[in-house]
Amino acid sequence: MEPTLRDPTDPLIDHAEGQHFLNEAFKVIVEEVLCKGTDATQKVCEWKEPDELAVLLDLELREMGEPRGRLLQRVRDVAKFSVKTSHPRFFNQQFAGVDYHSLAGRFLTEALNTNLFTYEVAPVFVLMENEVLRSLRQLLGWTEGDGIFCPGGSMSNMYAINLARYRLFPEVKSQGLWSVPRLAIFTSPEVKITVSNSHYSVRKGAAFLGFGTDSLILVNVDDRGHMIPEDLDEKIELSKSQGVVPLLVSCTSGTTVQGAFDPLDQIADVCGKHKLWMHVDAAWGGSVLFSKQHRSLMKGIDRADSVAWNPHKMLLAGLQCSALLLKDTSQCHGANASYLFQQDKFYDVNLDVGDKSVQCSRKADCLKLWLMWKAIGSNGFEERVNKAFVLVRYLVDEMKNRDGFHLLNDPEFVNVCFWFIPPSLRGKEGNADYPSRLAKVAPVIKERMMKKGTLMVGYQPLGDKVNFFRVTVFSPLISHKDLDFFLDEIERLGINL
Amino acid sequence: MEPTLRDPTDPLIDHAEGQHFLNEAFKVIVEEVLCKGTDATQKVCEWKEPDELAVLLDLELREMGEPRGRLLQRVRDVAKFSVKTSHPRFFNQQFAGVDYHSLAGRFLTEALNTNLFTYEVAPVFVLMENEVLRSLRQLLGWTEGDGIFCPGGSMSNMYAINLARYRLFPEVKSQGLWSVPRLAIFTSPEVKITVSNSHYSVRKGAAFLGFGTDSLILVNVDDRGHMIPEDLDEKIELSKSQGVVPLLVSCTSGTTVQGAFDPLDQIADVCGKHKLWMHVDAAWGGSVLFSKQHRSLMKGIDRADSVAWNPHKMLLAGLQCSALLLKDTSQCHGANASYLFQQDKFYDVNLDVGDKSVQCSRKADCLKLWLMWKAIGSNGFEERVNKAFVLVRYLVDEMKNRDGFHLLNDPEFVNVCFWFIPPSLRGKEGNADYPSRLAKVAPVIKERMMKKGTLMVGYQPLGDKVNFFRVTVFSPLISHKDLDFFLDEIERLGINL
Repeated sequence: MEPTLRDPTDPLIDHAEGQHFLNEAFKVIVEEVLCKGTDATQKVCEWKEPDELAVLLDLELREMGEPRGRLLQRVRDVAKFSVKTSHPRFFNQQFAGVDYHSLAGRFLTEALNTNLFTYEVAPVFVLMENEVLRSLRQLLGWTEGDGIFCPGGSMSNMYAINLARYRLFPEVKSQGLWSVPRLAIFTSPEVKITVSNSHYSVRKGAAFLGFGTDSLILVNVDDRGHMIPEDLDEKIELSKSQGVVPLLVSCTSGTTVQGAFDPLDQIADVCGKHKLWMHVDAAWGGSVLFSKQHRSLMKGIDRADSVAWNPHKMLLAGLQCSALLLKDTSQCHGANASYLFQQDKFYDVNLDVGDKSVQCSRKADCLKLWLMWKAIGSNGFEERVNKAFVLVRYLVDEMKNRDGFHLLNDPEFVNVCFWFIPPSLRGKEGNADYPSRLAKVAPVIKERMMKKGTLMVGYQPLGDKVNFFRVTVFSPLISHKDLDFFLDEIERLGINL
Repeated sequence: MEPTLRDPTDPLIDHAEGQHFLNEAFKVIVEEVLCKGTDATQKVCEWKEPDELAVLLDLELREMGEPRGRLLQRVRDVAKFSVKTSHPRFFNQQFAGVDYHSLAGRFLTEALNTNLFTYEVAPVFVLMENEVLRSLRQLLGWTEGDGIFCPGGSMSNMYAINLARYRLFPEVKSQGLWSVPRLAIFTSPEVKITVSNSHYSVRKGAAFLGFGTDSLILVNVDDRGHMIPEDLDEKIELSKSQGVVPLLVSCTSGTTVQGAFDPLDQIADVCGKHKLWMHVDAAWGGSVLFSKQHRSLMKGIDRADSVAWNPHKMLLAGLQCSALLLKDTSQCHGANASYLFQQDKFYDVNLDVGDKSVQCSRKADCLKLWLMWKAIGSNGFEERVNKAFVLVRYLVDEMKNRDGFHLLNDPEFVNVCFWFIPPSLRGKEGNADYPSRLAKVAPVIKERMMKKGTLMVGYQPLGDKVNFFRVTVFSPLISHKDLDFFLDEIERLGINL
């Protein structure tokens, strides 16, 4: 059917109707996502099988539009069947909770709909991003440097690796990897391979940037997941003896599963000795830098060449807010597109920051963090970080007091890794089938909690350790009551296994 | 100063106060960004010099937080000093206008704050993304395939190049570029180099992925910016004779400056002959596929291997919404992180789509497009696309009727490229200093419009053509009156030059 073409002198958008819809949708968001979605008496998730959910949502896109009432119902349905990640009993990921100032900043960013490439089109955001990055660098102990917000920590890690190879071999930008010797990237092993948990993005990044995953050299970790500097040193020597050029080590401050902090100072010594680029993936753990009490976990961070830090995790800035911080102030991503970066502009074209990025369109991810920071101050972040450690202490003590909760290790950060041992398995640790039976416990409890909708927490195996839960406790919405409920509910769900 | 630690049994977030703030901020957003910001009688931008703006915004981040009133003033200031990209007289970029349904979808996405990696944590978005991608593929004429939303078209282009090399040499994922012969990527020349305008992302992508920018081979274009298939064929033959393996051609549907559509059918013939991966960067032009009247601009698109299409441009989905569409259903980005993608889950783990991406955190960019599509239907998009062409026709006719407006070419799409020739230069085309004098006109008019705040439109040089304006006309908020104003205002600002 041909649409009727209206008078082309009229706009096609009806502001009054549009704003009315937006107002109504805003009310639904507040009610469903922010009120019910953070209410401990409500469900964390409303589990549906994929086929059933597809029918409920009526996803198909058609030729004809729909009336307002139907659309508002769709807004309500999307909210209803989505996981409530702000809920105080959502412990499933490294994002959780809600900060209203950040959320207001996100709404404003969306409404302003601009692109962080030139001062002309994003004057506020260009200046603001500089200031936020400067403030984050200050926490690293750097007095100068550069940086950029990236769409996630994986991209930040890739930027660091790309910059490292450009520093060592600037010709790589024009001539490619064929023009340089084989390079090696060092990081701690992945979950699947052995005991620890460097972020899988380094592996993906090595492939994407053209190095290949074989360029990754895995450094041994101790039982808690910390990279062993002596092993790093040996592996670097070994690579050199094989004619490979060691490029970069990606350390981790706050590993994904165990929350381990690599010993940065000792790794910095090894990097200095061999002239390696020292990158720190602090996507998860970086926020401890706000806490005078806990920042020593990252002692030596001032010696890094680059740091990836995601304020969308522990700081609740909202997905995505991921900073790459650079000590070096040169940069290699420029392509000098003259339709964006004219040199005959009437203002300082150094403010046209778009050429720093490999993206062309780049969202403004700074405002939400800036507004939240203005609202609660560095002291507010410190209080939240400190509180998270206090809550973890409480949870761990409770676990030690209860039967059936068995910790992998005493937590170093806000990740608590534990097995729930159902009564039927207690005291059976010596049995041959104990590991295989224990491995089946977490998946069943997980299925039950999802279907009941009372709780969300993740599990995984790690090296020779069978499936265990990993709970991350950092949302400022969490109270002792929620942690008590967490333990009670795991018991309820697993008692008969 | 040490913060006072509150009772750790209490949450640190005050929902009532937070929601009150969010409500107040929402009102400011509606008033400043959506009402004033789209009102033709108000300014498009409130120009300030960077130093002055930095002082006005008081960007510094401090230890102590601030009271509500101060924070709301900050929201107001950010809105006030930001460019109003939704304004009907913002013609500066390939994004403009506002769609309220899309914006409601964006607010809901932000509030739900989840990550598109597993069905468990993003059930609605996983299913919805699949459906939206399927609907976009249908417009390409594909009955099957795959796809993913990426943070911008540059990332989509990089994905395509990465997949192309993996298809040809799967070993590249593990062994890197050292293990494969030198590869070549073909695209049309960049703005700086000669006459046309393939997106600069291909250049950045070649460097980032490890190929190096020398791997880019520039195919000649005609005066309107269309890739010349015969030259592509010759350049491919030449590469082969030099021992280089031709990998991929990146064609463009809707170039950035001139809005040119490459002849896809003829390029597909060349790709077929040489077995090259055919990628189409349709970030800007893809939306013509909604129009029965104009979709022939992309004739041959069904023969592509991959397509990048940004609904955040012409369709007003909001930054960012950028789809990579793939004909092939295999994929190479997986790293199988077992802490995310456990194989012993209780649902179909094929729905855990995160491993398709090189990102770990990935925003849900589908809801805003889906909700808007539900609201106006494919027919609504068709009407908007058709209207844009009608408005461009009107603008071009008006320019032809006025002295001093000189078109580069009759537009093929919704980009109108033109010089404004002030009276002092009219009839002086033969003078030796004409080009250099003309080159100075656009920058001065631009400076004047920014400082007056009445209009925003971009300019650039192109090959041997000195600075000219490029206006893009597609926002459904634009009326004939806005286009009349546009022409009048350019005359007013440039008449005395």
